[in-house]
Formats: sequence, structure tokens, C-alpha cells
Amino acid sequence: MIMILGVLGSGSWGSAIAVHFGRLGFKVIQWCREEDVAESINRERENRRYLPGISYPDTVEAISDVERFFKRVGDVIFSVIPAQFSRDFWSRFKDELKRRRVICASKGIEISSLNLLSQVYKEVVGGKYFVLSGPTFAREVAKGLPSAAVVAGEDKEETFALVNMLSSKIFRLYSSNDVIGVETGGAMKNVVAIAAGISDGMGLGNNARAALITRGLHEIKNLGVRLGAQERTFYGLSGMGDLILTCTGDLSRNRQFGLSIGKRTGKVDEKYVVEGVHTVRAAVELAKKLNVEMPIAEAVYSVVHDGKDPERVMVELLSRPVKEE
Amino acid sequence: MIMILGVLGSGSWGSAIAVHFGRLGFKVIQWCREEDVAESINRERENRRYLPGISYPDTVEAISDVERFFKRVGDVIFSVIPAQFSRDFWSRFKDELKRRRVICASKGIEISSLNLLSQVYKEVVGGKYFVLSGPTFAREVAKGLPSAAVVAGEDKEETFALVNMLSSKIFRLYSSNDVIGVETGGAMKNVVAIAAGISDGMGLGNNARAALITRGLHEIKNLGVRLGAQERTFYGLSGMGDLILTCTGDLSRNRQFGLSIGKRTGKVDEKYVVEGVHTVRAAVELAKKLNVEMPIAEAVYSVVHDGKDPERVMVELLSRPVKEE
Repeated sequence: MIMILGVLGSGSWGSAIAVHFGRLGFKVIQWCREEDVAESINRERENRRYLPGISYPDTVEAISDVERFFKRVGDVIFSVIPAQFSRDFWSRFKDELKRRRVICASKGIEISSLNLLSQVYKEVVGGKYFVLSGPTFAREVAKGLPSAAVVAGEDKEETFALVNMLSSKIFRLYSSNDVIGVETGGAMKNVVAIAAGISDGMGLGNNARAALITRGLHEIKNLGVRLGAQERTFYGLSGMGDLILTCTGDLSRNRQFGLSIGKRTGKVDEKYVVEGVHTVRAAVELAKKLNVEMPIAEAVYSVVHDGKDPERVMVELLSRPVKEE
Repeated sequence: MIMILGVLGSGSWGSAIAVHFGRLGFKVIQWCREEDVAESINRERENRRYLPGISYPDTVEAISDVERFFKRVGDVIFSVIPAQFSRDFWSRFKDELKRRRVICASKGIEISSLNLLSQVYKEVVGGKYFVLSGPTFAREVAKGLPSAAVVAGEDKEETFALVNMLSSKIFRLYSSNDVIGVETGGAMKNVVAIAAGISDGMGLGNNARAALITRGLHEIKNLGVRLGAQERTFYGLSGMGDLILTCTGDLSRNRQFGLSIGKRTGKVDEKYVVEGVHTVRAAVELAKKLNVEMPIAEAVYSVVHDGKDPERVMVELLSRPVKEE
């Protein structure tokens, strides 16, 4: 059987993955929930809705029929389905997924259960699971700009084999065996990005932002370690790298949402499209449950969900008592 | 004796420190090498040459006579003299310095000896030495924007006492006992900032920059640990925090210098004003001596000192083989 890579999902990140690996020479089949998106990819060689302006290589084929997708694709599938919908999708197709290697490229935490996606996958499918995460704006990967990320899996050799198969000069992959650590960094960064956006929106400057990002990684790491992660993972591409990208890059929606709060130009409705608004609920609940101090997450929560004044909250956050770093 | 803080140096950072502590209510005496700078501070309440647009509080007095400076100031002095001139100044005034607590706020490495400033101070003075470092653009501290930094000293209690005396809500200080680690981060960040600037100048995008910063911290940390630093220091404000600031903030001269190389608009002469151009020599020499892999420093060196083509160097840097993170 020729290796045909599968991509589940037609958002910007799923599409960037399909385009990238298609350009590398892989045959790729991308499943799109919406039929017109699949058609736009197949006929116009472009995902007009979610990744406009990027031209698809001929090696990528889009399919909206999920049964046909599973009949055609090989052993390796990227799952790029939004975090809150992953459980449902995975349960429905668990038999198909179980016999394959699944690389989850979605980031986030399941709010209803407070579970990371690897935990959800273990519960509903139980097969070979890997996670891809790192500082990767979809549009830049799709344009062929150089990027780097981590692939984590429980089995070291299997992960390394996958990394060897998929890594390239333009999109370098590093292997890790810390699934929990890689997922926690990818999920929690959005909370700090909202805080960084608020700070920038209020005009607090680059010093304050750099301090927030640094202290933010610190609290994400503390949470992750309590969840079973390895500390060093947070200082790598999936931790610090992705956090820097999300907090300083203007393509980040979470940062943009924070900016609009800081500048007081935000509309309440906007918040429902931003992942960090949901993640911060989970962060604060987990922090309470596991007894971890997360002052930045609490500050973001109190602004976003309790309607507290951002200025007052930022002042409180920035005047915590002196201690060892 | 009333506590009079001393500040040695009249550059933008020394001036920002004087302005900040003066505004907090300390009596401050700032030594300025150039008499006209001292006059501009005393008469016009502004350091027109090195920190224009920032108004000095009445609590700060400038002095260009260094003997008079030492007669007036109390027990705590900030040394903000450029790294390459520190040895000479400290030797000349070692008796005055030795009986005081000196907080070095300059960053850099002494190129001639490959020594950190704490090592130079130990050699020529030998008294109580502390280092202040963190993500602090001078102009933002001078404007009263919120900032945070680390003060490190060998004696835990003495450092904590100093931090307690100097920390405030607007400029928070954290204590550390890792002098070598704090200094290594502050010196080496400029090398990575040049690399990040080159990458941005070439239009390689936010993903590439975030990866460079992350891998850059990794190699700085490896060097620091070989020099005797504690690994965790590099993940704090003086390591990661300062690195993020310098690599993403447009006020950074090292980043601007890299940008001009990446865009091919740079003039060779510009490079002599940028600290990272000197530091990268020391980094590459130390890396060789201590057998530490520093691919980013080597890449910057080969562009800045060997005249290699930045595009080719960046491509080589970004296509290093796959491995564990």
C-alpha cells in the first residue's frame, strides 16, 4: 500500500498541514466537514473559507465523505478537529482510528471533563496516539516559511520513526516522550496570550509583556508538572516557543482579543470565538483542584468571566509581594 | 547617615535607574563622565544626550567629579559603566567600592579575558557584589511603566535585604543567588537578538523567530551551566524574559542591527556600536573552550565577522538534523 497521509479537519491549521505535506511529495487526503470547502479545494486548489490565498498542490485531495476518507487513507492520520468536538468524532470512528497512528494537531483542553486530548483519546479509542505542537502559525507553514515543532508519543522508538518520516528542512520536527507536557503547553498558552494582549492594549510596554510571558510559563509549568509532565518540556518549542509566538505575534486571535479588552474597544460577543476564554475556566478549576498558584490565569478569569476592571486587575497582578524567583 | 543611592554612569540605563529610584523617594547621586551631561541633568532636569524626553525628579543630583561622588554617596551603588570599561574604573576606585554594596546593572562579557563582570569585580575589588538584570528597556522604566527584574548575590540574606529595600510595585525585584546564571543570560541574549533580527529582516516569519529564540535560550543555558550557573535561572526574568524582550522589542539595537543585515540595508560601520557583535566573539571562543554546541552563535559569528551570506547561513542553521529536543 502506498502511504497516503490523512488529515481530519478543514480549518486553517488542518489545511496548512495538508498543503505542507502535499508539497513535500506525500499523497494527502483531507477530510472536510463542509462539502463546499472540499469542492473549493478540489476544483479551485484553494480553501477559500479557512485558508484563502494559499494554493494547494496537486497531491492533496479533499473528501467530505468520512467513510470514503477512511477507506482511502493509510496508516498515519492527523486529527485537527477542534478540541471540544474531538471526543464525539473519535468515538464515532474509533475502530478506524484504533488501527492507525493518529497525530493530534489540535490544541486545547476538553472543558467538560478538564481532560487533555490524549486522555480523551485513551478513553474513547485507546490506539497509538501522538501530538504535534509548537510555534506554528498556520499561514506561515502554508506559505512554506521555516518552522519547527515537537511530536510527542509514549513510545520513544515509534515517535522517532514518525519524526524521521515527516521532518523536513522547512518544517523541522523534534521528538519527545512527554505527551502531557506538550499538550499542557499548547492548551494553556492562550490564557497568557490574553493577558499579554490586555497589557499591550493598556500600553504597559514591552518590559511588562516580557515579565508576563516569563511568569506565565512558570505557572503553566507548575500546573503541567502536577498533571504528570516533565518540567523541561515547557522550555522547549511546544512550551516557551509556542507561548512566545502566541503572545507576541499579531496573527494570534487570543492576543487580539486581549488587546481589544486592554484598549476597551472589545465587544462581549467576540470572546466566544477565542479558545483562551474557555481554557481559562479549565485552568482556574485545575489550579484549585491541584493546589497550584496561577495568578495570571486568575487575573484573566476575573476580567473575562467576572467582568472585573482590567486596569485594577493588572495593577493587583503586578504588585504581588517580593520573593525568590 | 541618610541613605543616598549612588549611580555610576550616565547612559540611558544608568539614567533610568536614577530617575526611577529618585521618583520612589530615594536621594540619588548620579556620576556622569561628561560634565555637560551632569549640567543638563542639574539645570534642565533632563539627560538630553542619553535619555531625552524624560524629566528628572528633584531627588536626583548629578556630579561629574568622581571623588566628590564617593564622598557623598551611602552604602549602595549601582555600577552602570559599559562592560569593556568596568575593569579600569573599578581598579581605580577599588577602595571606595570595597566598603560598599555594589549592584552591577551593566550587561556583557569582558572580551579581552572572556570573563563575566562578577569575575572581573572579584579580581580587581573583591567586595560585596550584586547583579541586576531582567527585561528592562531603559526608556520604559524611566517612563514609570511596570517592570520586573532579578537581583542576584552570593549571600542569600544580604540579597534579600537589598531586594526588600529597592523593590516596588512599579519595578518589582526578585532575589536569586545565581550570579553567574543571571550574568550569562544578560550578556548572551544580544547574540540571539542579532539572529532574530536577521531572520525577521529576511522575512522568515514569526514561527522561525519563536524557534530561534527557544533554541537560542537552550544554547545560552548550556554555556551557562558549563560556567557554573544553575539551569533554572535561564527560565526566569534574567534569562528567558530578557531574551524575549531583546528579540521581539523594536527598541533593541542588536535586533535592529540584525534586521538591517537581513534586509541587506546594513552598513558595516553600524556594527561597532552593537554589543552583540563583540559578545558573539566571546560566545564562540567560550563554546570551543568548554565544548558546548552553539549553532546560533556560530551562525551569527560567520555572518558578522566572516562575511558569510546570511541567507545561506540561515538555511544551514534551519536544516540541522532531526533529534530529540
